[in-house]
Amino acid sequence: MKEPLRIGIAGLGTVGAGLVKLLTENDELIAARCGRRIEVVAVAARDHKKDRGFSPSRFVWFKDPVELAQSADIQVFVELIGGTEVAGQAVEAALQSGKHVVTANKALIAARGADLAALAEKWGLSLNFEAAAAGGIPIVKALREGLAGNDITRVVGILNGTCNYILTQMEETGRSFAEVLSEAQALGYAEADPTLDVGGGDTAHKLALLASLAFGTVPDMDGVYTQGIERISPIDIGFAREFGHRIKLLGIASMTPAGLEARVHPAMVPLGTPLADVMGVLNGVLTESGAAGQSVFEGRGAGGGPTASAVASDLIDIARGTRIAPFGVPSSALKTPRRANLGERQGTFYLRFDVLDKSGVLATIAKCLADMKVSIESMIQRGRAPDEKVGIVIITHDAREADVIAAIKAIEAAGAVVEPPCMIRMERL
Amino acid sequence: MKEPLRIGIAGLGTVGAGLVKLLTENDELIAARCGRRIEVVAVAARDHKKDRGFSPSRFVWFKDPVELAQSADIQVFVELIGGTEVAGQAVEAALQSGKHVVTANKALIAARGADLAALAEKWGLSLNFEAAAAGGIPIVKALREGLAGNDITRVVGILNGTCNYILTQMEETGRSFAEVLSEAQALGYAEADPTLDVGGGDTAHKLALLASLAFGTVPDMDGVYTQGIERISPIDIGFAREFGHRIKLLGIASMTPAGLEARVHPAMVPLGTPLADVMGVLNGVLTESGAAGQSVFEGRGAGGGPTASAVASDLIDIARGTRIAPFGVPSSALKTPRRANLGERQGTFYLRFDVLDKSGVLATIAKCLADMKVSIESMIQRGRAPDEKVGIVIITHDAREADVIAAIKAIEAAGAVVEPPCMIRMERL
Repeated sequence: MKEPLRIGIAGLGTVGAGLVKLLTENDELIAARCGRRIEVVAVAARDHKKDRGFSPSRFVWFKDPVELAQSADIQVFVELIGGTEVAGQAVEAALQSGKHVVTANKALIAARGADLAALAEKWGLSLNFEAAAAGGIPIVKALREGLAGNDITRVVGILNGTCNYILTQMEETGRSFAEVLSEAQALGYAEADPTLDVGGGDTAHKLALLASLAFGTVPDMDGVYTQGIERISPIDIGFAREFGHRIKLLGIASMTPAGLEARVHPAMVPLGTPLADVMGVLNGVLTESGAAGQSVFEGRGAGGGPTASAVASDLIDIARGTRIAPFGVPSSALKTPRRANLGERQGTFYLRFDVLDKSGVLATIAKCLADMKVSIESMIQRGRAPDEKVGIVIITHDAREADVIAAIKAIEAAGAVVEPPCMIRMERL
Repeated sequence: MKEPLRIGIAGLGTVGAGLVKLLTENDELIAARCGRRIEVVAVAARDHKKDRGFSPSRFVWFKDPVELAQSADIQVFVELIGGTEVAGQAVEAALQSGKHVVTANKALIAARGADLAALAEKWGLSLNFEAAAAGGIPIVKALREGLAGNDITRVVGILNGTCNYILTQMEETGRSFAEVLSEAQALGYAEADPTLDVGGGDTAHKLALLASLAFGTVPDMDGVYTQGIERISPIDIGFAREFGHRIKLLGIASMTPAGLEARVHPAMVPLGTPLADVMGVLNGVLTESGAAGQSVFEGRGAGGGPTASAVASDLIDIARGTRIAPFGVPSSALKTPRRANLGERQGTFYLRFDVLDKSGVLATIAKCLADMKVSIESMIQRGRAPDEKVGIVIITHDAREADVIAAIKAIEAAGAVVEPPCMIRMERL
């Protein structure tokens, strides 16, 4: 058997501790699969004394992740710190000093992936980030290797377990976003500051990575249109169901004739299609490829176990000697994507207007839509007492997104509504 | 750019022709992903003149696949002939003469996988078979690499598109197995001799491979209990629905304390679980792993495009220099699995008895079950006119499989039934 692969882990939170546990428990199994052991020789973490379920004396300890990254003791640097600043310095230092890198850091790869990949390639090193997208689902490998014979045209994912949990709970209990979020925070399913999750930023990071892998483009976080789930109400979840749909926070990347279309927003997904059935904290990814057609991947996206599983698979690739350019093509071949103008996108839309039930309001709404050539596929108006607030819900035929938005603005400007209108894109899958 | 990877393809049916098309269309894309071109330089097929949508003069033609396998012109031999005899000789000849091998041949790998892997490893060659399991789903790669950090405990798959199509059509139209099969044959979804598909043999081949990859065991076709879908009736499909289930032909491999349990049979799958929603010709695979938990993969399992996609990914691995033991561990480390005795398995069962509606029959059935300590969770008896055939449907509590089978035999022996009883295993997912 070859000599062990010596690794150093920076960051011993849930994932780092989960990784140590996994590598310890499956030591023999992994050695058989790699032809060599994977040995954690050093770690970097702030608190030496915290109980993590294993003896700290097994490892050389570093306070400074950059120092660990440069240590001659290790061959692979595992970055589980998060954030882009220190983590970025440490990853760069590791590559500069000849260490392979495995990272779970979606923000770092989304922001600096192409440069770091170039550095890795320059020195013939691996920069693996399976854990950055959807932990228990080997989707990075599927895009970079499993579907590599295909012209991939679209990637659609439910990539944030917190959002999917919240939407699932809202549907099952009929409670509001705020109520369910508080409960999720109490249960530890949502962070104290949930912005990155519920605002869609985390999904956007992951989508930027997946789009790069699928289309051979430089990760382009700034090009991802991002809208969160904060304004989704139980009313819309109910109407979605009436129209045979379910609301999901999707990350969608398509290569279109107009350029790369990358968007994160709540979307109505037809019931009976695979992503509609991905419930709770689970993640799901759908890919569309020329030859393979639609493939769907589903599993646990976050948490210690699934993320550690993804990091371990990256380490096993390194131990086995697999070397593939981080984004599947050499970083020098990554194209800067032309961004498609979302306003030009054709799609169908769910619109809800809260209006006072008085004569002329529906006529105003209909006229504003007609003026922008947005035609109505179906409409529901729930009757209430006269002069009370009433909801008008419309599903459009295929329309240009910019026209729909202009029509909504005109309806607001005409004073026809008592609350800001709600617009949710419908997604064909 | 490195020199092209020169490949030879034996067998130019749907998959072979699809592969030539895919490699031609995505030539540039694949070259960018591999750092080199993949070039088809030679082919072996019986009929030189048949129109396959490309000019035959592009390639060196061989009549004999073994000759192609040994040709000095190629570095990779792609085996798409099928069957075990000639294909086996050709694959062996290719490995003996220093060629990497890519094959879509599940029967060959199930029968001789360990020996062929040993031969490939001896010469440092690849023997890749992604296309042997479920074309558009990169499940071989997922088990061998993506989940390689995990102790994998169970693999459950819908692995035969023909069977899944037939069961889906039976449910949707209420027609019999025989009717739907004829229609599927007319549409080209089923072979003229459908035995290998509907009898479960094809699923068993694939399951034998997946079990090897998951558990590091020698492929053990003879150890796979195999039962087909020929006896499934619309009546059972209807009852399944009443009990919140759907009937699927599953391949199930679990590593249990009693040994490897590998079985292919129609099973009732709870509605709302991912495999229940895999409809039509699609395939689906569910894996259970220590760290990653449940992962689900869904996509097109067969046909020219998906299978060619899988073959292409294997070729790209070779072109990129990825070398992993065919079964994930060295063939010398593959364990011969101890076979679990299925009779000892605990599970719940759906039982249907066609009886004459006369007094004492239900008592006999109940007594025979009770004698074997099989207890009843729920029962449906549909009333008809006296002295007419009536169906009694029973769902058992957890019971030992051998006890259930013994009870059924006793019920038959007691003359309580007018048709052979129907037993369908229920699967927890």
